Amino acid sequence: MSSFKRNVYLKTVPIPQAVETVRNVLDRETLVRTEQVPAHEAAGRVTAEAVFARYSSPTFHSAAMDGFAVRAEDTFAAHEDAPVVLKVVQAGSSLPLQQGHAVAVNTGHPLPQGADAVIMIENIVEALPDSAQPKSVTIEAPAFPWQHVRRIGEDIVATELLFPQGHKINAYDVGTLLSGGIWDVSVYERIRVRIIPTGDEVLDFTTRPEPGPGQVVESNSQVLATLARSLGCHVERIPPVPDSPAAIQKAVSDALDDKMHLTIICAGSSAGSKDFTRSTIEALGEVLVHGIAAMPGKPSLMGICRGRLVAGAPGYPVSSVICFEELLTPLVSWLSRSETPQREEVHVELTRKVPSKLGVEEFMRLSVGRVGAKYVATPLGRGAGCITTLSKAQAVTRIPANAEGLEQNQTVPAELMVSRTSLERTLVCVGSHDNTLDTLADELMGLDTPFRLASSHVGSMGGIMAIKNGSCHMAGMHLFDPETGDYNVPFIRKYLPDTPAVLINLAIRHQGFIVPKGNPKGISGIEDITTRGLRFINRQRGAGTRILFDWYLKESGLSPDAVNGYRKEEYTHMAVAANVLTGSADCGLGIRAAARALGLDFVPLARERYDLLIPEQFMEDPRIMAVLQLLSSPAFLARIEALGGYETTLTGQVMQAGTALGESTR
Amino acid sequence: MSSFKRNVYLKTVPIPQAVETVRNVLDRETLVRTEQVPAHEAAGRVTAEAVFARYSSPTFHSAAMDGFAVRAEDTFAAHEDAPVVLKVVQAGSSLPLQQGHAVAVNTGHPLPQGADAVIMIENIVEALPDSAQPKSVTIEAPAFPWQHVRRIGEDIVATELLFPQGHKINAYDVGTLLSGGIWDVSVYERIRVRIIPTGDEVLDFTTRPEPGPGQVVESNSQVLATLARSLGCHVERIPPVPDSPAAIQKAVSDALDDKMHLTIICAGSSAGSKDFTRSTIEALGEVLVHGIAAMPGKPSLMGICRGRLVAGAPGYPVSSVICFEELLTPLVSWLSRSETPQREEVHVELTRKVPSKLGVEEFMRLSVGRVGAKYVATPLGRGAGCITTLSKAQAVTRIPANAEGLEQNQTVPAELMVSRTSLERTLVCVGSHDNTLDTLADELMGLDTPFRLASSHVGSMGGIMAIKNGSCHMAGMHLFDPETGDYNVPFIRKYLPDTPAVLINLAIRHQGFIVPKGNPKGISGIEDITTRGLRFINRQRGAGTRILFDWYLKESGLSPDAVNGYRKEEYTHMAVAANVLTGSADCGLGIRAAARALGLDFVPLARERYDLLIPEQFMEDPRIMAVLQLLSSPAFLARIEALGGYETTLTGQVMQAGTALGESTR
Repeated sequence: MSSFKRNVYLKTVPIPQAVETVRNVLDRETLVRTEQVPAHEAAGRVTAEAVFARYSSPTFHSAAMDGFAVRAEDTFAAHEDAPVVLKVVQAGSSLPLQQGHAVAVNTGHPLPQGADAVIMIENIVEALPDSAQPKSVTIEAPAFPWQHVRRIGEDIVATELLFPQGHKINAYDVGTLLSGGIWDVSVYERIRVRIIPTGDEVLDFTTRPEPGPGQVVESNSQVLATLARSLGCHVERIPPVPDSPAAIQKAVSDALDDKMHLTIICAGSSAGSKDFTRSTIEALGEVLVHGIAAMPGKPSLMGICRGRLVAGAPGYPVSSVICFEELLTPLVSWLSRSETPQREEVHVELTRKVPSKLGVEEFMRLSVGRVGAKYVATPLGRGAGCITTLSKAQAVTRIPANAEGLEQNQTVPAELMVSRTSLERTLVCVGSHDNTLDTLADELMGLDTPFRLASSHVGSMGGIMAIKNGSCHMAGMHLFDPETGDYNVPFIRKYLPDTPAVLINLAIRHQGFIVPKGNPKGISGIEDITTRGLRFINRQRGAGTRILFDWYLKESGLSPDAVNGYRKEEYTHMAVAANVLTGSADCGLGIRAAARALGLDFVPLARERYDLLIPEQFMEDPRIMAVLQLLSSPAFLARIEALGGYETTLTGQVMQAGTALGESTR
Repeated sequence: MSSFKRNVYLKTVPIPQAVETVRNVLDRETLVRTEQVPAHEAAGRVTAEAVFARYSSPTFHSAAMDGFAVRAEDTFAAHEDAPVVLKVVQAGSSLPLQQGHAVAVNTGHPLPQGADAVIMIENIVEALPDSAQPKSVTIEAPAFPWQHVRRIGEDIVATELLFPQGHKINAYDVGTLLSGGIWDVSVYERIRVRIIPTGDEVLDFTTRPEPGPGQVVESNSQVLATLARSLGCHVERIPPVPDSPAAIQKAVSDALDDKMHLTIICAGSSAGSKDFTRSTIEALGEVLVHGIAAMPGKPSLMGICRGRLVAGAPGYPVSSVICFEELLTPLVSWLSRSETPQREEVHVELTRKVPSKLGVEEFMRLSVGRVGAKYVATPLGRGAGCITTLSKAQAVTRIPANAEGLEQNQTVPAELMVSRTSLERTLVCVGSHDNTLDTLADELMGLDTPFRLASSHVGSMGGIMAIKNGSCHMAGMHLFDPETGDYNVPFIRKYLPDTPAVLINLAIRHQGFIVPKGNPKGISGIEDITTRGLRFINRQRGAGTRILFDWYLKESGLSPDAVNGYRKEEYTHMAVAANVLTGSADCGLGIRAAARALGLDFVPLARERYDLLIPEQFMEDPRIMAVLQLLSSPAFLARIEALGGYETTLTGQVMQAGTALGESTR
């Protein structure tokens, strides 16, 4: 469809080449000026020229201890058997210091002229007539020359180089500057960034809008502004500009007039019929890069207008972040003569296989924790639209352009987005999703030594496999065994015969049909689904809820084929509820909490045990011990009960084969 | 001297115990309140309660690509041999979407009711009558349900947990909050810190004073303020308070009235007669810790007054920093529910032996660089008064309380204060000191790819030993061989017979007597030193200047014993000059630059070669290549000449045995 009126991508280029292209065209010397700032406000700034000391430090010989300043040679004869008595005189009384005289000094005091040593007060054996204002002091050991004296220039000699150009000033350096008599320092100016959100459909969050249908709250500009501020930039953001070429061009032109070093146009960087970033840059200057060989982030745009950098960040939040972090961060660092921030690298073991596209570098966020001796990493969704994957990730890995994917259990390098310490405090939970896990996550973070719960939702069977694979600390499950009527235990026996593990109940929960408010279809039992052809939304294979549903179908003598939507799968209770809320489905099986969360109704069908399986080797792990302690806390139990749809009569108890659900507390 | 009126230390305690003691007494729940902040200003703040999503994201099914929204089932029959033609209708014209209809959509647009898939514009094979506003589109492949659709709640489902309590919000999280409809978030308030500098002798830098005798510019408060701000604290600093118990108590009391969580009294934390911090805390509350089993930093003080933390930081700058970083940083982090910042740890090899005191943990700053395969670390001075050691250090190591010291070549753990990347860009130079090295350091940092020169001054022979030991990239030397009249080469042949290395001239420099302004003693030659009993200041053994002096003594038939001060040693030219400036010595041998730096006079005695020795294995190292390139730069040579006392006729040339100094250019 070459006849469609669309922008045409330039050839996509690898990220390093994109950065290099811009560096080669931007004239940094002309673009970024220097300025004088007070030394105590200079932390984080970069010196524009060498800084030489004006003063020495100390500027005078000074006492390094509390005691008495003396002439060392007067003390050479002092001995335990032949004490030396020195006459105490007032500082400044008769200088230079006379033979046999001593002057009381405190740490930091200037040494009296003629003195060349300090005797610590602890080494004075007698002071007469009294210790407060003695007229003489007795010593029993000699002082060597310059003992306990800080000599002039000991720290800084006037005129010496304190810092070369291009040095980023830190907190200590503020002290060095002031000690060297430097009140003002010449530094490069802050990089000024203006961020221009665009789009007819976006709402300005600062007006606290309530979005209507087809509207979205613009957030990318705030994310980029925060990232840019963390680089030390001066950042301005303007309200969203509509999808109008003239309006966008005016906004960029204003930014250039206001001497912005970098202007970022949010969204519209791609090649759609309403993407005007490219034509804006072309109207005001030149496009240098359009398209990078990376995903997400491919439709990134960079150009130069009046000698200044203008960038187009893609509209999807993850793409937008990658455009900023991979392209603009190195360029801003280069402009400001700073080191590009680097993340610590660790090696992690992937919990599952990941496909990827040849020829494109892919960024994949990971949920990481230390399990036993290794860092295990569960890939998070790679959708460019999912900002939460950035919040949930502890690390990011790059799948190289020449790879077709990564294998399960493969060890790959990953860049940490949190500290290693924080990984040690991360509890990895894999398995079925339940809202009580959120409550648990919140309570764990409220402890005096907080722990982070990294929870991956792959269904109950996925949790059992993760335990088998050694890739989690605990697994949440609610697997009903139709043969025995028991929960979880038969599955653990079957799939984990050789793994010593403890099964502990988190809660008894209610499962039922999630239906629209008011239950318009009048669903009361499983037969309503099949007999009336209602649209059902199912859970994925292996999920406990799916197994429960299959059992109820079988018990009722119904065939899966009779269920309209049996093959439409979702991975969480919340997603099932969302299908019902939007009318994509008439009902789905799930927990009461999910129904209530979206204002839906709930038709109870069953009570089931939601248990946590914990390998024995982790029972003494502080993270697990914290969980166990919470499970016995009345406050925690009360919080679970308050969610609705839960009972806590078994919570915290070790589950054996055949542990009954017990009587409902309601 | 128990009768002296002094404070008595409590028992010094290990750092972890000191922190724990305070944590056990401070009531964090009462002390630190919560507040609401706008989401876009919440980065760096810590959530005070769980945050649940108000909206789903997306809030509606939306197109994930530019193209046409369709009913997937209408496309199932499409095939290359059997294209399907869909009628294009306007969005909103007749909803739900009719069979066989399609609606043009851009990325982000809501899907028309009834549509459940998007066909990418690239997959439209024909659009009639024209591509801009087609009335029909033809496809040749089926669309599967929900392809290229972002479904409601794909990223966030309303009511789901976005963040637990105790979560530090980052830039991405700002996007997650806004996407979830959270405009304000409940966070813990910033920790408020007031810093009170004290001391009769200290000057307030903010008044831009010129210190007189016995006065010092107060800088610790600015260093601590910068450190506290980097932890996210709200920091206030007041002008210095004199050494008056009443004035200090008033200042602390004001800080408590103003609801400061932490008040820091700078200096006066020890047990001297003018140390009032302890009595101040005792008057207003209770001392919890006085003295830690660590050096520097031992006289640190912590107490609680009206439920608030009051600390006494020692007066020496390094002690003050250690007090803040080791005691107050963990406490501020705990109060603010943040993770204590951690430095990356590396293993480094020490270039020299270091003694230490049993029973006390010692902090030692290190100059670190990567030389070959290892990180080499040269210990920096351990004086508590030397703030510049903090500026010069790339790492810090802790000598455990139960160690009596560390051995040369011992590998020890060290905490990095710079990035690993920065270590790769550090050029390690060990040997004799010369001011041209400062010029080199500055020029290296001005390069497009900057390098940092870490220069340790241990004399020329120390440099040769460092090359032998593999602990530096290059060594600066000016070793005169009295036997041959040659420089450096004979020493290299003798001490490094098996180390392939290249000797390159940095500059010819002038050595001479550094004398007071006006040369009051009328020194004109070496005989003046001995015959008139003038006080001389010498350089350390192994220093090239020392060897040169010894040769001149011998040439003149003079004995070292005839030199008054022959055994008084300094390690740098600047230190020698400082001795002359302060009258500690009448003269010393050194370079013209050092004399001029301190406004002293200079009596030329000799010209000498100052060369750089570089192991052959590093000649292709980018750091060394950058040095070599500078040595051939006319601008660099001009800068050296401008220092005075240097000639550059040999600069950059490879030195062989017997290379002559050449004619003076002056």
